[in-house]
Amino acid sequence: MTIKLIIAYDGTTYDGWQRNHKKDTVQGRIENVLSKHFEEPIEIVGSGRTDAGVHAWGQVASFAVDRDIDPAALRDHMNLYLPEAIRIRRAEIVGDRFHARYAAAGKVYRYQIDLGDVYDPLRRHVAIHHPGSLDLAAMQSAADHLVGTHDFSSFTQMKSKKKSRVRRLDAIDIEREGTLLTLRFTGEGFLYKMVRILVGTLLEVGTGVRRPQDMAVVLAKKDRNFAGETAPAKGLTLERVIY
Amino acid sequence: MTIKLIIAYDGTTYDGWQRNHKKDTVQGRIENVLSKHFEEPIEIVGSGRTDAGVHAWGQVASFAVDRDIDPAALRDHMNLYLPEAIRIRRAEIVGDRFHARYAAAGKVYRYQIDLGDVYDPLRRHVAIHHPGSLDLAAMQSAADHLVGTHDFSSFTQMKSKKKSRVRRLDAIDIEREGTLLTLRFTGEGFLYKMVRILVGTLLEVGTGVRRPQDMAVVLAKKDRNFAGETAPAKGLTLERVIY
Repeated sequence: MTIKLIIAYDGTTYDGWQRNHKKDTVQGRIENVLSKHFEEPIEIVGSGRTDAGVHAWGQVASFAVDRDIDPAALRDHMNLYLPEAIRIRRAEIVGDRFHARYAAAGKVYRYQIDLGDVYDPLRRHVAIHHPGSLDLAAMQSAADHLVGTHDFSSFTQMKSKKKSRVRRLDAIDIEREGTLLTLRFTGEGFLYKMVRILVGTLLEVGTGVRRPQDMAVVLAKKDRNFAGETAPAKGLTLERVIY
Repeated sequence: MTIKLIIAYDGTTYDGWQRNHKKDTVQGRIENVLSKHFEEPIEIVGSGRTDAGVHAWGQVASFAVDRDIDPAALRDHMNLYLPEAIRIRRAEIVGDRFHARYAAAGKVYRYQIDLGDVYDPLRRHVAIHHPGSLDLAAMQSAADHLVGTHDFSSFTQMKSKKKSRVRRLDAIDIEREGTLLTLRFTGEGFLYKMVRILVGTLLEVGTGVRRPQDMAVVLAKKDRNFAGETAPAKGLTLERVIY
């Protein structure tokens, strides 16, 4: 039986998603609970990694086990044994050919920025602080240059040059509600640190350090040095994986 | 010179507002920073206490010092030395007769409830989890019975019977946005644990355990035993003090 899990987590205190026996990771926590429950080593496959400090509302993972499973009971059992910072939102039976990573057709990330003069303490784990005005129209214009199918080599810290760095970025939506700015990225897939480098670059457009039309040049350079800073992990949340 | 501070804090890890030399409190943290800065013991007066785990966006405190002060510089200095969980949103010079507690004309509190099937890990410090449906119309109707000037003895854990327990409750607004329910209480003043007992009682109306019209009876009894449970501290935030 193959099970698909939809997982939310507060990444603040974890060393990221990816299992590492020396670290406290979200994948490790979930596998421990499953392995104890099934009394055999269970390995799960995530839709992708998230870095230390990055959060999720809709991370997806899958695993197979030779057993009949009641998904709702499994979810409740897991939530009983997992820390409150990690929650299984849903467990469901899927076809045996389902694979959380290979089957993913797209992802939605949000990045949150607190624009207030003073950093709201209740937002400090889920948003970065960026006081002072930002030119949101310029940021949206820059975002429009970035949307589309491009080689995003300038927007990744990925080291291997063997794999294609061409990705289709479907949308960047910029939304302000009071002092909270949310940038939402929808695409077929994202390279390592791509969202955070996009955010860092868009912020430089917002402060006037870069112009919207420079985005075409940055893309064309295919060189990380031409893009902006990598924005901090804590503002980033994986909202949804699309299958 | 008398200074008024507007203070935001994440109360999660503090033993409440009120100074206590054996405990880690918000007032204690702020007084330590001020006392070091002014090189003399500084005591601040808050608009009122908040319990352990309760948050604030707009707590107010005042203090006097025989010195000329640049309020903006003081604010920045304090934010440099305070933990990130405590932020001075504003410091301003006020008349010497200003007193954060006695001058308060009203307060606004919000209480947040996560209605989702599974507790959102990113909300777990600022909202309680209450899965399952709530009859919001019944809760609003019960709230309408509670608004007004009443003896709120049934809605407090205050022990002394010497002081008046009559308070004017101006409004209870119930607002749902997705799976987040916010109850907002506006009044001239609140008794010890009053908001949390109001919330606990309203939740019992929402689940059908109590009827809206029973609120009149609960008020009339003037006895804590007739109201509902005290809702947990972490859902509560002092939003604003009105002067």
